[in-house]
Amino acid sequence: MSYAAPVKDMKFVIKELAGLNVINRLPGCEDATEETVDAILEENARFCGEVLAPLNWSGDVEHSVRNADGSVTTPKGFKEAFRQFGEGGWQGLHFPADYGGQGLPKLVATTGIEMINSANLSFALCPLLTTGAIEAITLNGSPELKAAYLPKMIEGSWTGTMNLTEPQAGSDLALVRSRAVPQGDGSYKVFGQKIFITYGEHDMTENIIHLVLARTPDAPEGVKGISLFVVPKFLLNADGTPGARNDARCVSIEHKLGIHASPTCVMAYGDNGGATGYLVGKENEGLKYMFVMMNAARFAVGLEGVAIADRAYQRALEYARERIQGRDLADGSGPVPIIRHPDIRRMLMLMKSQTEAMRALALVVAAAHDAAAHHPDAEERKRNQAFVDLMIPVVKGWSTETGIEVASLGVQIHGGMGFIEETGAAQYLRDARITTIYEGTTGIQANDLIGRKIAREGGATIKAVVGIMKQVEAALAKQPGEEFAAIHAGFARGVQALTEAATHIATRFAQDIKGVHVGAVPFLRLMGIVSGGWQMARAALVAQQKLAAAEGDARFYQAKITTARFYADHLLSQAPGLAATVVSGGAGALGIPEEAL
Amino acid sequence: MSYAAPVKDMKFVIKELAGLNVINRLPGCEDATEETVDAILEENARFCGEVLAPLNWSGDVEHSVRNADGSVTTPKGFKEAFRQFGEGGWQGLHFPADYGGQGLPKLVATTGIEMINSANLSFALCPLLTTGAIEAITLNGSPELKAAYLPKMIEGSWTGTMNLTEPQAGSDLALVRSRAVPQGDGSYKVFGQKIFITYGEHDMTENIIHLVLARTPDAPEGVKGISLFVVPKFLLNADGTPGARNDARCVSIEHKLGIHASPTCVMAYGDNGGATGYLVGKENEGLKYMFVMMNAARFAVGLEGVAIADRAYQRALEYARERIQGRDLADGSGPVPIIRHPDIRRMLMLMKSQTEAMRALALVVAAAHDAAAHHPDAEERKRNQAFVDLMIPVVKGWSTETGIEVASLGVQIHGGMGFIEETGAAQYLRDARITTIYEGTTGIQANDLIGRKIAREGGATIKAVVGIMKQVEAALAKQPGEEFAAIHAGFARGVQALTEAATHIATRFAQDIKGVHVGAVPFLRLMGIVSGGWQMARAALVAQQKLAAAEGDARFYQAKITTARFYADHLLSQAPGLAATVVSGGAGALGIPEEAL
Repeated sequence: MSYAAPVKDMKFVIKELAGLNVINRLPGCEDATEETVDAILEENARFCGEVLAPLNWSGDVEHSVRNADGSVTTPKGFKEAFRQFGEGGWQGLHFPADYGGQGLPKLVATTGIEMINSANLSFALCPLLTTGAIEAITLNGSPELKAAYLPKMIEGSWTGTMNLTEPQAGSDLALVRSRAVPQGDGSYKVFGQKIFITYGEHDMTENIIHLVLARTPDAPEGVKGISLFVVPKFLLNADGTPGARNDARCVSIEHKLGIHASPTCVMAYGDNGGATGYLVGKENEGLKYMFVMMNAARFAVGLEGVAIADRAYQRALEYARERIQGRDLADGSGPVPIIRHPDIRRMLMLMKSQTEAMRALALVVAAAHDAAAHHPDAEERKRNQAFVDLMIPVVKGWSTETGIEVASLGVQIHGGMGFIEETGAAQYLRDARITTIYEGTTGIQANDLIGRKIAREGGATIKAVVGIMKQVEAALAKQPGEEFAAIHAGFARGVQALTEAATHIATRFAQDIKGVHVGAVPFLRLMGIVSGGWQMARAALVAQQKLAAAEGDARFYQAKITTARFYADHLLSQAPGLAATVVSGGAGALGIPEEAL
Repeated sequence: MSYAAPVKDMKFVIKELAGLNVINRLPGCEDATEETVDAILEENARFCGEVLAPLNWSGDVEHSVRNADGSVTTPKGFKEAFRQFGEGGWQGLHFPADYGGQGLPKLVATTGIEMINSANLSFALCPLLTTGAIEAITLNGSPELKAAYLPKMIEGSWTGTMNLTEPQAGSDLALVRSRAVPQGDGSYKVFGQKIFITYGEHDMTENIIHLVLARTPDAPEGVKGISLFVVPKFLLNADGTPGARNDARCVSIEHKLGIHASPTCVMAYGDNGGATGYLVGKENEGLKYMFVMMNAARFAVGLEGVAIADRAYQRALEYARERIQGRDLADGSGPVPIIRHPDIRRMLMLMKSQTEAMRALALVVAAAHDAAAHHPDAEERKRNQAFVDLMIPVVKGWSTETGIEVASLGVQIHGGMGFIEETGAAQYLRDARITTIYEGTTGIQANDLIGRKIAREGGATIKAVVGIMKQVEAALAKQPGEEFAAIHAGFARGVQALTEAATHIATRFAQDIKGVHVGAVPFLRLMGIVSGGWQMARAALVAQQKLAAAEGDARFYQAKITTARFYADHLLSQAPGLAATVVSGGAGALGIPEEAL
């Protein structure tokens, strides 16, 4: 169950589609030269392939285990792997140099996030949550909080968690009940139970920094009364080292469908007098801060979809080449490797084409994130931020839904062996299944997309994006040959469908709010398919230029064009039907009285 | 995690869509009066809900376990439940009275198969395989074999297995290597290893009757040299009771993604001198006999898809009514039960509408099976058999693929709780995941559909079916109102798409065999969606009549019409895109050289 990071495709995308050489001219991004980036990709690929990937299956079998004293033991090898992860500087890749980070663009860090998730999703969750906690403190913490916590977290010596959910408050944070009582010395006592806390307890590092949402005594009701606190597992001594044990404990861990190696904790705060916490930023602004963390986390979970899809593809491809079964349909020779059978090819191409499309879209969004943060021109920053905001629910929702489908295709290609756990294909499906749920379900992503990101601004940003897509459509029309004719036809239909559906949403949102929301997820899927098709079309255009100039690896570029054509015929073909559902699907979904379902 | 069989919908379908009162006028089906059928449905619903359903989750947790002596212990309660299953006559419902069966039509038995699979898929596999073994012996066995084995199997005292697969021979039975050597006394010694043998060993009954594919010494190569043998676990004494232990042993059981309670065995035949077996029918005709069993088994596995979908729907609906989270989008009230949110409604309706469509199609096919077996007119028998043959891969492939999707929607509706095993929603997904693989993968069903069932006869049967669909389309066009307008529009587009795709397959099959096969699974899905839409449209037409006549439960009938409308807008909308993929998807899928994938 080896894993070889798709370094070649990543290099192609970051250079040719995401514009590395534009990004590394932005102020603060200058270190990301082509040479540096190539070196980072190669080294990260080695680390993920050699250190993390071998622990993926063993971690699934062993699980993280909670001991009688409340401590949690992670699977064999995780602690040492996390040490190497920290020492390699991987936790700090994207963070500013002020607190020990390497200050590289998100574009570069994003390739690393895909790799680590492909290699070992359960392991990768710890850095993912730590990144969220680092961002919350970086953006909103006092200088003292930053100095106390950031260096250790960025160097990978301490990890972080995000504590939002309570039994009665999942998607709806207005229902949060945890309390935080000021102690008059600047600290608070935190009380409450949080659930679904990933790596809430573990044995990999000497401290764990919990970021906890809670209400102060005079806070208003609902989401406007939530504050954010840092609650370390061990309080810090005067010299900054971990000291007294805080009143924050893991009281149980969940028995889950997948990601078995990552402990999902029920955390109890304040059962023995109160957990000491420190306010991040201002009181009652916790939700705003959490949203910043959540946006980064949502993007990262989208990459989990890409990552699982790639890992599942690699495994299925290997099996399809080795497994001998049946005869060649055309010439009757055989028995042949099953990759020779058309339906196996179709499934492999579904896996490959969607993985490449999702990866390309995620990296293009990452580059826009860098431009939004670093571009010298304010208009450009604003334009890029609007694109990022529009696309985050798509990267999250579409990539994770597709990741599950791709992992399931991987099981299918294995036939009966796919259902046997030791094969490993089923683990990818089990692990992937959480990704459409945590950090906001697909439904929540889709509501965010059609509400905050489209209807609220009358569809301005998506119209601009469609305008750019239409330029690509025009460029496709000029290319010769059957393959580009198919790519053009598919993409043109897709853009047309997206336009119709987006117009419906922008114009009908207020009048028929429930009916329009029935179409939210179909619209998100439509937008994902068309946005992925946009990147595949761009890739095909670049490949065509390279082939015409006889530059680089002709087989790679020819495969890109054929993959884009497959994507047009098998995925973009779904676009008109999805648009039809968005436009007319409301009444049927809502027509039956609740009690008659 | 209770289960209440959908008796009301089943009664509606068997009476109004599948024509119970036509079937029970056929010779040999007269016992299936409305009163009898109603009583059977009610009693079966009680048995499945009270006895089998409570063992579903506990069985998943306990697993079947292989002991050091090679015996297998099933989960607590299974043995007693199987005894009750036999005593209730449920194993013999559909078998002729000659050997102790109840001689009821397949139409009636099919409702029972859905119920038992919903209640407990792992349990249901034992009767499913036993049914296959009974059919093989009934159709092809000598009078002596029938007399020796059928009564005990039909009364539920002994179970049966099907032994096809070997490590190198999964989908491709030409590769079977197991041997059978004639002993001169009419018996054979069987040698070989078989894998994936469901209930190959267990503790529920006093004997297990294995049906085993093997080659005799002079057999030709390939599928024309395979013979079928009965190999009982215990040889029979002169009085017919189980005697000496045969040389057939379970050497290990698999660690699987789902159906944990059902032991999936590696069986070793003849490790200690040879397992005594008895030829079924003639030498070298084993594959033909197996095909008869396989067709019945494929239909039954299709019902597993329906069954899991219904169980997942019941569970998700209950959760969606109880879980309080978020505010009503229209009036801002709340927090509200999540069933109030449009995307939850959409998911519930996807579950409900597809479950009802799959059930209706399966029961209509079951009725055609009865007509094919019992109709006095030879032409009618032939016509019905052609319809059954065409539809079996659709019922199997489409219902199982959809069953997985529906089970996954069930997980999604549960949010984070869906990923926690104790919730139970994940078990349905894990259990469902095997159904698109065993008894022939979806790819194999689809190849059978486009090859043997369409191309070979130039599309004659499917053209006839489309002709019947067009009559329904015409009837829809005459109905008033917005709902029927939507149903008509969706169904008309679906029938048009099906016609285009089927014509492409029939005309291009020989010239572009691999390209056409790329479209096999998309075509199967298209045919499933349109065939399901056909039944939903028929249901809506019946419901409209009942409403006009003020007969029966108006809320039930109104819901049928709205469900058909939802199905049109959300499922039939996919038909044109699928047809486009069937027609043009070949080249892109096959264009990349194997080694460049």
